[in-house]
Amino acid sequence: MAQRTLLNQLIEALRCLPGVGPKSAQRIAFHLLERDREGGSRLARVMAEAMTRIGRCRRCRTLSEHELCGLCANPNRDPGLLCVVEQPSEIVAIEQATDYRGQYFVLGGRLSPLDGIGPEDLGLGLLEERLREGLVSEVILAISPTVEGSVTAQYIAECAAQGNVKVTRIAHGVPLGGELEYVDGGTLALAFTGRRAL
Amino acid sequence: MAQRTLLNQLIEALRCLPGVGPKSAQRIAFHLLERDREGGSRLARVMAEAMTRIGRCRRCRTLSEHELCGLCANPNRDPGLLCVVEQPSEIVAIEQATDYRGQYFVLGGRLSPLDGIGPEDLGLGLLEERLREGLVSEVILAISPTVEGSVTAQYIAECAAQGNVKVTRIAHGVPLGGELEYVDGGTLALAFTGRRAL
Ligand SMILES: [Zn+2]
Ligand SMILES: [Zn+2]
Repeated sequence: MAQRTLLNQLIEALRCLPGVGPKSAQRIAFHLLERDREGGSRLARVMAEAMTRIGRCRRCRTLSEHELCGLCANPNRDPGLLCVVEQPSEIVAIEQATDYRGQYFVLGGRLSPLDGIGPEDLGLGLLEERLREGLVSEVILAISPTVEGSVTAQYIAECAAQGNVKVTRIAHGVPLGGELEYVDGGTLALAFTGRRAL
Repeated sequence: MAQRTLLNQLIEALRCLPGVGPKSAQRIAFHLLERDREGGSRLARVMAEAMTRIGRCRRCRTLSEHELCGLCANPNRDPGLLCVVEQPSEIVAIEQATDYRGQYFVLGGRLSPLDGIGPEDLGLGLLEERLREGLVSEVILAISPTVEGSVTAQYIAECAAQGNVKVTRIAHGVPLGGELEYVDGGTLALAFTGRRAL
């Protein structure tokens, strides 16, 4: 089995999937070949198309195969609310869990001068333009409470202040059902600094 | 996000991978799109080719894109030894762990009249022909020690006896480093019935 058979190539190529090591790549390859060739063929077809055709929405920068994503193109979404997230996957999580009906903006990361990530890499120019349009009345920052996240949030807050746009940040703290003794220290500290009067 | 975007189609198609639920399908899709489009494109290409071009070796029935697999075509493998396995993946495991240098035959399952799996489904006619060729001197059964596996082993043993071919079965028992108290009852029972004099 040392030669580069098509089976070996498949096992190797499967390693690009997150969390898939040599053993599970092998298990997946045999599963598809022995039990689900149809599913494997469909996946191959859709994956090839997705990798080439999915780009970024020109308005909110989320992943989309159209110039304007479904959320930006939806006239029923409140144009006065703009939620800023780091990653497209966070939009899915918010859509599934909340009744938020505003629009989004995707940074794709956090400001990090040390890693060479500046305002332009996060589309902050585009975001400033958006705020200058005058439609947005509140920017909701859903950015992780790390040092870099806070610097990024501060940067956006200053842009928003210039345009007289209200800025809020989602609450961070102990999760629902989270037992205090198992919550990490950083989260617990945030929960204390973010405490509110009853 | 309710519309059938290409992203949603990708997430859905990824569900054909074993052990991948909705959450991990989503995680994989975002990972590929955001971080490894090249890997995703290569995987799509190799997978499409593998699903259509990999068939079965006409001699041993393992997965192969050629009429004759690399093992059957290898003149350095001992044609006198034939190891019978249930699945192609077991060949990989044996090749990696042992110094077996004979050939293989893949059943693709076990005899199970209740599930409508008879001798022809397992290629037992082809195996009989192989034994009649006169080259094989020993058949090594690497078949699971279940009821159906034992019936299958018995069937092959009878064919082999008619051709005066010696039949052996790999040992089943407590695995190396296996602690008795954690080994399942069936394995422990096998270890006792299979005990040998010191
Ligand atoms: Zn958009
Ligand atoms: Zn073969």
